[in-house]
Amino acid sequence: MSAKAGRVLLAYSGGLDTSCILAWLIEQGYEVYAFMADVGQEEDFEAARKKALAVGAKKFFLEDLKREFVTDLIYPAVQANCIYENVYLLGTSLARPVIARGMIEVADREGCDFVSHGCTGKGNDQVRFELAFYGLRPDIKVVAPWRLPEFYNRFPGRQALLTYAAEKNIPVVQTASKPWSTDENLFHISYEAGILEDPSITPPDDMWKLTNSPENAPDLAERIAIEFKQGLPVKVVVPADAKEYTDAVDIFVALNALGRKHGVGRIDIVENRFIGVKSRGCYESPGATILRAAHVDLEGLTLDRNVRALRDQFTTVAFSRILYNGHYFTPEREFITSAIPTSQRTVNGIVRLKLYKGNVVVEGRESEEALYDSQQSSMDELGGFEPTDTTGFIAIESIRIKKWAQANITRGLGGVTAKDVYGRA
Amino acid sequence: MSAKAGRVLLAYSGGLDTSCILAWLIEQGYEVYAFMADVGQEEDFEAARKKALAVGAKKFFLEDLKREFVTDLIYPAVQANCIYENVYLLGTSLARPVIARGMIEVADREGCDFVSHGCTGKGNDQVRFELAFYGLRPDIKVVAPWRLPEFYNRFPGRQALLTYAAEKNIPVVQTASKPWSTDENLFHISYEAGILEDPSITPPDDMWKLTNSPENAPDLAERIAIEFKQGLPVKVVVPADAKEYTDAVDIFVALNALGRKHGVGRIDIVENRFIGVKSRGCYESPGATILRAAHVDLEGLTLDRNVRALRDQFTTVAFSRILYNGHYFTPEREFITSAIPTSQRTVNGIVRLKLYKGNVVVEGRESEEALYDSQQSSMDELGGFEPTDTTGFIAIESIRIKKWAQANITRGLGGVTAKDVYGRA
Amino acid sequence: MSAKAGRVLLAYSGGLDTSCILAWLIEQGYEVYAFMADVGQEEDFEAARKKALAVGAKKFFLEDLKREFVTDLIYPAVQANCIYENVYLLGTSLARPVIARGMIEVADREGCDFVSHGCTGKGNDQVRFELAFYGLRPDIKVVAPWRLPEFYNRFPGRQALLTYAAEKNIPVVQTASKPWSTDENLFHISYEAGILEDPSITPPDDMWKLTNSPENAPDLAERIAIEFKQGLPVKVVVPADAKEYTDAVDIFVALNALGRKHGVGRIDIVENRFIGVKSRGCYESPGATILRAAHVDLEGLTLDRNVRALRDQFTTVAFSRILYNGHYFTPEREFITSAIPTSQRTVNGIVRLKLYKGNVVVEGRESEEALYDSQQSSMDELGGFEPTDTTGFIAIESIRIKKWAQANITRGLGGVTAKDVYGRA
Amino acid sequence: MSAKAGRVLLAYSGGLDTSCILAWLIEQGYEVYAFMADVGQEEDFEAARKKALAVGAKKFFLEDLKREFVTDLIYPAVQANCIYENVYLLGTSLARPVIARGMIEVADREGCDFVSHGCTGKGNDQVRFELAFYGLRPDIKVVAPWRLPEFYNRFPGRQALLTYAAEKNIPVVQTASKPWSTDENLFHISYEAGILEDPSITPPDDMWKLTNSPENAPDLAERIAIEFKQGLPVKVVVPADAKEYTDAVDIFVALNALGRKHGVGRIDIVENRFIGVKSRGCYESPGATILRAAHVDLEGLTLDRNVRALRDQFTTVAFSRILYNGHYFTPEREFITSAIPTSQRTVNGIVRLKLYKGNVVVEGRESEEALYDSQQSSMDELGGFEPTDTTGFIAIESIRIKKWAQANITRGLGGVTAKDVYGRA
Repeated sequence: MSAKAGRVLLAYSGGLDTSCILAWLIEQGYEVYAFMADVGQEEDFEAARKKALAVGAKKFFLEDLKREFVTDLIYPAVQANCIYENVYLLGTSLARPVIARGMIEVADREGCDFVSHGCTGKGNDQVRFELAFYGLRPDIKVVAPWRLPEFYNRFPGRQALLTYAAEKNIPVVQTASKPWSTDENLFHISYEAGILEDPSITPPDDMWKLTNSPENAPDLAERIAIEFKQGLPVKVVVPADAKEYTDAVDIFVALNALGRKHGVGRIDIVENRFIGVKSRGCYESPGATILRAAHVDLEGLTLDRNVRALRDQFTTVAFSRILYNGHYFTPEREFITSAIPTSQRTVNGIVRLKLYKGNVVVEGRESEEALYDSQQSSMDELGGFEPTDTTGFIAIESIRIKKWAQANITRGLGGVTAKDVYGRA
Repeated sequence: MSAKAGRVLLAYSGGLDTSCILAWLIEQGYEVYAFMADVGQEEDFEAARKKALAVGAKKFFLEDLKREFVTDLIYPAVQANCIYENVYLLGTSLARPVIARGMIEVADREGCDFVSHGCTGKGNDQVRFELAFYGLRPDIKVVAPWRLPEFYNRFPGRQALLTYAAEKNIPVVQTASKPWSTDENLFHISYEAGILEDPSITPPDDMWKLTNSPENAPDLAERIAIEFKQGLPVKVVVPADAKEYTDAVDIFVALNALGRKHGVGRIDIVENRFIGVKSRGCYESPGATILRAAHVDLEGLTLDRNVRALRDQFTTVAFSRILYNGHYFTPEREFITSAIPTSQRTVNGIVRLKLYKGNVVVEGRESEEALYDSQQSSMDELGGFEPTDTTGFIAIESIRIKKWAQANITRGLGGVTAKDVYGRA
Repeated sequence: MSAKAGRVLLAYSGGLDTSCILAWLIEQGYEVYAFMADVGQEEDFEAARKKALAVGAKKFFLEDLKREFVTDLIYPAVQANCIYENVYLLGTSLARPVIARGMIEVADREGCDFVSHGCTGKGNDQVRFELAFYGLRPDIKVVAPWRLPEFYNRFPGRQALLTYAAEKNIPVVQTASKPWSTDENLFHISYEAGILEDPSITPPDDMWKLTNSPENAPDLAERIAIEFKQGLPVKVVVPADAKEYTDAVDIFVALNALGRKHGVGRIDIVENRFIGVKSRGCYESPGATILRAAHVDLEGLTLDRNVRALRDQFTTVAFSRILYNGHYFTPEREFITSAIPTSQRTVNGIVRLKLYKGNVVVEGRESEEALYDSQQSSMDELGGFEPTDTTGFIAIESIRIKKWAQANITRGLGGVTAKDVYGRA
Repeated sequence: MSAKAGRVLLAYSGGLDTSCILAWLIEQGYEVYAFMADVGQEEDFEAARKKALAVGAKKFFLEDLKREFVTDLIYPAVQANCIYENVYLLGTSLARPVIARGMIEVADREGCDFVSHGCTGKGNDQVRFELAFYGLRPDIKVVAPWRLPEFYNRFPGRQALLTYAAEKNIPVVQTASKPWSTDENLFHISYEAGILEDPSITPPDDMWKLTNSPENAPDLAERIAIEFKQGLPVKVVVPADAKEYTDAVDIFVALNALGRKHGVGRIDIVENRFIGVKSRGCYESPGATILRAAHVDLEGLTLDRNVRALRDQFTTVAFSRILYNGHYFTPEREFITSAIPTSQRTVNGIVRLKLYKGNVVVEGRESEEALYDSQQSSMDELGGFEPTDTTGFIAIESIRIKKWAQANITRGLGGVTAKDVYGRA
């Protein structure tokens, strides 16, 4: 490849992999600009900047994307109760569109024809990043070294990278490598690979980074309250600290601190990657777990039953899959999210929670919305409608059921002893 | 009404309401047989028998339906991960079909043309019972006193019932009435009505009956293991007690005891009743909560991704709604459950769990099923497929995304700054 | 009932039933205002006005709702390809919300506390009307005589109505009554009841009113073109008449005339009413049938695949059911329709059609939208992507399939001879 | 490649492409066996056999798969009303699993480690074939020449193939090549590519092969009757020919002949291929179109409403997509089709149809199933249930709607003039 391969914007982490990729890209004739996104991860950005420039990057860009991460991605996902395979709250998936958009902005501004990343060839993130790049700038060219034989054959393992780093004078942190990989942002941290690849092995206690274990969490429960407007948190009240939070990012940071303290939000699952491989992952999402519990609860009080059912079956499922598979910058995402605000118009009110050793306990909720009517729902008094109305309702509901039952009985399939039809095992 | 109104089988609880209904039905000229189902609730059945006969029932039937409750209803619901409105595990809904079937069996055998129950005119249970009756015996006649003006106008409150009880020599337990209603069975206990009708009020600690509070649960975590075959629990191992359980009912009872001890399975929600009224309910489902966590986890390891997604969106949602709405003895239930066994063919393996103060923590899982392949999923080594294959996959996945992005850019709608299309808030 | 029962607004048709209802309501002490909606049906409105006033209505209101019928109801349904049970285009369902809204507007303005209608107690329309009334004015009171025992027991059949009409000097048209009922509007006409209640009987040729039979349609095909913007028809070109139509109502009227001429849009089905009863209905929807064929076709060219799939499974199904069941003025309708515009952003272009003896044949379509790319789709040339990319795509797509196949073979369930797994009958 | 590359089973068509591929595979060192499946296409199989052997195939296998095509694939799809993107009946998709299974059977028996096909690198069929191969024999190796650069670069167009054919003494039929591609089987014929790639061009009249045009179809309508048992056709009666057909294959052949005669079953669409490219296709499915119309109609009479709705939204959608995307030999297909028989238990009866110039008109249907009840559905008489029951039904149905309406009015959003909430455009 010529010395003038072009200008590439590299998603840089400061670690061994992307430092070697940086050097290798230069070796291939690229002019390399390094890009880092601050999406809330714990990171020494200044050290990373120095390192990138030392290794040979011509420029270094650090973009603070925390606010748009919260407002553009996290909050719509909260409104839609997004969840993947019943358990996973999608923390990595949510960050990818924001980071990719930040990169394309810089690439456009700085005249880069290429973008590059250090994702492996087997994971979800390569797909999420690249589909996002193409959805924003369809003619962008992507260099994915871990999928290029000339790269992955040259660097078959960590030792080969270390050798290359020594050769290129890339400084290597002398701490022992953790036997797993992580991805961290404001929403969560993920752990996968390494010793976690055996799904029967319990993760070691010292792996978990963002939360206390329930065992080590305080023995005293703590009460908080979250106020929502149109399905979005607008205030978190923490009486123990005599504090209130109203800014979107502040709210999320405060909930993370509360979840961390009380051991909330750890999961450990085997999930199905977009490419069809099963994978074991562990996650800590402290604030998001609290927020989801509160939001789901408030919807019980304030959301119409049929809206809830349709939203659950449609928006929640589709948006979660779109996020997981990296289909954010697509027409189907645009379609799916366009209905979220309508679903959340009435989701206004306050949820009171107790946090205690891993538990998020709803202790009460209130709302100005008038869909709940204690007199109407009361078993103890008349009101709202006549008991005789229900007789008519049941009569009409049973019309087709009686017809079917009668038809079964006529042909000898029905009645209490019928096995197949009536579900007696 | 004549003295010979006919023979009615009354779902009898032994409490004030159904005792008064019993007396009232006799007053209306019915010959009354009393029916009780043992579905695992704590109850003095013998006392209830004596009371029913004392009040005037001609016969009393007690049916032990625990086993069919577990095998016919609970276990298919476990296989399908049934849940209503994200939170409620459907404990009352699951018992109703079994009780209704038991009643119709007795009614058929004993020549009853009528069945009767003490459900209120505003709840789900009247609907569940009656649709089940009609689905089994479409020509059965139902007497629902709480929906008959001649009954509910005569007994406008508890005091009127007490007066009537005194008049009819119905013995009344002199304990103070709890300020809420409950329904209990092997799967759960529910609390609703009374003081719970204000959804902002935290239930009092002494309401909860089936579980310790997390605060009062042991300070030491306990490990157990659950083995599944085809999605059904076949063995529970409790090392601390040096016990193993393999019988279906024993397994459920053992899990209940474990959940009770460790404070697992309390919820407090506002839900949407079938008749369209919102209602606040509290529930304790200790064993079921543990079982669901284990089953969902094992599916991660053993169930194909696409089967899981289709089953979640179809079977889980539809079966849960069918159960909640009392549509069990219907053709749609038959249709929906007919696909469950196929979905569970590979759900075989063992899940290891930690129980601690309200938490059910999955610590590991294993299976002979071969859908998980650690080498294939490994980020650290090649294997299973070529990294270059993923390049092709992404290229094909991006075809329509690039087309759409290009079209947007052409008409000025696309690119990183586009608000509507690209989701920047 | 006292002479001052209140003021009621009656949905009046001019026919025997609603004329008798009008007289009967007066007899019950109501002051009656009569309401008619012009939704495009063939009707002598002036004669109806005179008759209503002659029978005793204090006022008569005729509202022309054709335009809002087309723009508010019909066009969103066209955009969403609404259809019920695969066949029925929902013509009656679509008119009901518009008529109900018109009635409530008049009732509000004229101080009516009651509304009344002549729908039978077994059909869909009573439900659609009343749920719409309540969705707009929850405290409105509805008088539905055909569900009041004092009315339906007094008028057990047509002869009783005729006798009453004679007694009340209600003029009766001396034409023989048709042996079926109809409901007509701009969108369609429906036929049901009477001789049609035997679903094996072929409707007589002279029943069909809005269309020629295919046999009697012209022997020469006719070509037209329909242009859509954002999924809505904005121009219909009829070369044979040298005409173009661009107004929303004009377009629909013109398509009706074309469909009528060429025998398009008859159906005959057994459908499932909301109340659970099966019912045989025949329908003619000439213009709507043409429009739907064109819209569905244009979406093939202009709509993204994933948007289409999600829209079909979500919007189309849910909106069709909402319309059929009369749930228009509900939060779920608001939720569902809020996503339609996003789905139709790219549905712009022209469809050319041939109409011939009942057939609507798409002959070609074109669009400025750029999602179709003949070079990319071409089997005959390279372009758009590399054939080798597809190899990678298939490799990744087959990962989980191979895993599953290998697992089956290992346990003796797989391979070509496996019956259960591989679907050999 | 060495002279001992291995033994390959080639899906052979007798045409120019696969003949050149055959020669080229030999050139690459493979021993080539040729395979043809008789799935009902018009073909001179004997000529193809001679040609394959002449070009150098060591063996030739012709498998008659018509019956299993009908019984294993077509009939379940008929039961599920399968359709893709509202229009396409999936004729090519349905044949692929049967052909692939036939090939793998021969490959297993004859010791072939490779299979090969002549599908292009841009279409659906390569994916369908290969995923089917892998789903049956996960270790099979596939040679897809049109995705191999060494092949497609050598043969950039038809002329290069003709030159190669001359060089290899491959006989070439001297008829002019059609300006489109076709795929034919018992179910349908497809046309795509060539001049059809411009979606605005009307296909020429002489393209259509399997059906008369409606214009050229007989001027006299013809009546037939189709009897179904459990959703499957078991008898077709053709009075005009005094014939009845009861064998599965005979039935399909007879319906094809009827559809051909009367011009039934042509479509012309732009569809979305699995790989995300839009593609224009024309199809003739004469028998299948008739069968679908009859089956959909009979379900109206015999299938429970809720089963139908769930089946439509679940089975139909999922099975259609599975078939289109070539996911037949997968766990999700197994899951989805396992519920079909239950859904069809009551779909028994006879549908009478009129065929006339492209129209399939249902003229009546009858069934022993008792879900339809003319007295119950009758608008003209009481029966089945009380009109007053419907009052209760509507009262209960309106509870949540009234609550919502009242809440809207209270906050100024409701009432007849509300734009956003009430859908006034």
